Amino acid sequence: MTELPLDQVRTLLAVVDEGTFDAAAAALHVTPSAVSQRVKALEQRTGRVLLMRTKPVRPTESGQVVVRFARQLTTLERDAQRELGLAARPHGTRLPIAVNADSLATWFLPALTRVPQSPPICFDLHREDEAHTAALLREGKVMAAVTSSAEPVVGCTVRPLGLARYLPVASPRFAAHHLSNGPLERCLPDAPVILFDRRDELQDRFVRSLTPDGSGAGRLRHHVPTSEGFCDAVAAGLGWGLVPEPQAEPLLQSGALTQLSPGRPVDVPLYWQQWKLDVPALELVAKTIAAAAAESLHTPD
Amino acid sequence: MTELPLDQVRTLLAVVDEGTFDAAAAALHVTPSAVSQRVKALEQRTGRVLLMRTKPVRPTESGQVVVRFARQLTTLERDAQRELGLAARPHGTRLPIAVNADSLATWFLPALTRVPQSPPICFDLHREDEAHTAALLREGKVMAAVTSSAEPVVGCTVRPLGLARYLPVASPRFAAHHLSNGPLERCLPDAPVILFDRRDELQDRFVRSLTPDGSGAGRLRHHVPTSEGFCDAVAAGLGWGLVPEPQAEPLLQSGALTQLSPGRPVDVPLYWQQWKLDVPALELVAKTIAAAAAESLHTPD
Repeated sequence: MTELPLDQVRTLLAVVDEGTFDAAAAALHVTPSAVSQRVKALEQRTGRVLLMRTKPVRPTESGQVVVRFARQLTTLERDAQRELGLAARPHGTRLPIAVNADSLATWFLPALTRVPQSPPICFDLHREDEAHTAALLREGKVMAAVTSSAEPVVGCTVRPLGLARYLPVASPRFAAHHLSNGPLERCLPDAPVILFDRRDELQDRFVRSLTPDGSGAGRLRHHVPTSEGFCDAVAAGLGWGLVPEPQAEPLLQSGALTQLSPGRPVDVPLYWQQWKLDVPALELVAKTIAAAAAESLHTPD
Repeated sequence: MTELPLDQVRTLLAVVDEGTFDAAAAALHVTPSAVSQRVKALEQRTGRVLLMRTKPVRPTESGQVVVRFARQLTTLERDAQRELGLAARPHGTRLPIAVNADSLATWFLPALTRVPQSPPICFDLHREDEAHTAALLREGKVMAAVTSSAEPVVGCTVRPLGLARYLPVASPRFAAHHLSNGPLERCLPDAPVILFDRRDELQDRFVRSLTPDGSGAGRLRHHVPTSEGFCDAVAAGLGWGLVPEPQAEPLLQSGALTQLSPGRPVDVPLYWQQWKLDVPALELVAKTIAAAAAESLHTPD
């Protein structure tokens, strides 16, 4: 491998993290033209285009390799500095981790707060759909991820966390109005439904599993892209939806929600993927997360 | 203006909404090559590149104009169909709206559920930083937005909603450990802090307003990119942070949080921006939101 000048590598990382050349310049305390020159020099040296000049900039596939290298480098360097007592001020090891919104809203954050904070660890959480966290790992944006993909990303290890359980629910008033004129498989495809966002396929998959002709959920679709907002919207009667069990339970008990198909939950397997990198802070977090997941998630039969 | 063939315009919109040519083809029930041909034909006719072929694709500046036109067209057409009784199945008027996470977690969703649902309205909510919702309006991705920008986006009207109030808070244990060895302006810059994400400048601005030398918040920074997660992380003692008043209040009363600087809240003005477009559903939502904001937000002195 051609030698990669570390100032150039670090500059590339800053541009990707900050999103623009100007912001990277401010973060590095250099001029924007110095940033631009370093990135160009690195592109000439590697003979590859490393950045797409979009807004925000995005690394190309080759750029992603350099970014991942840069992040691993920074982490190892900081660990070494701290062990040598060279860190001027406590920085904390920065751990960028991708987590899906529902895990973040239920079991993940209480688990993180259990991680001992000495030496300090800075959690840099990225909220991302569990089906798309693998991309962030591949791009080098995060060092670890809660993902629904069992297939390890190149350079990563994977371990199963358990099953996240979703319950099909609606408000009792909604159910009486929209779902009482026939069997569920006939009413549900026409009833208003809440989706998290455009990439949320859970509701469609559930309806398809009920109907023999395999049609999806209805055309009256609301998108509510926060985990708590999703649950609130279902409880308010805007539509039916699949709500994480820990959020649904108290509302089922209070009568604010009713189950549409008791005993037929939807289970989504979750995995922990992380870079193969000997960073004590990462290992500590991985262990704490796995233990918390074992308590909070369901185990496969 | 050269005439824009409507099937091509709609195809462009589908590609932008679905993110890829393949997904747009599936949504339109045509082949991917038909999608690609239509987009190319539209680019030749307008003499402009309309799409950046990234993943997901993004409209260029010219493309954004066409997308906005396409979305306005679709909305008007659907309204006309419904008035003429031509809608085969109730589709509902689709209203894409951008909202910042804190509004979504506090006053916005209860307001939306007050909007009468006959004829049905589908809420397509996009969660976006209040400082960046203007971009979604400009790109034609949303028809309306809760934003911190008073400057109307081209083709939009703007009305003030009120002030969202944030309180600087921490857990009592955190305050005793990190903030009791001197005056706040000296302790706060060194204490661990929670930010929503990289674009969250609220905490830095608050610290700068306290310190005479204008330095920002500390270097031990956690990023917790959900509104409820942010509040939970502060309550769990991971760091201090600026929490929306409605979320902070109950925790201050129960003693789970303590105010760092009573009587010095941070107020962020919020505005409603929407396309100048005569759509009854949009007007209905705008009125309901404005009324709810007047109840929930603070009024400027």
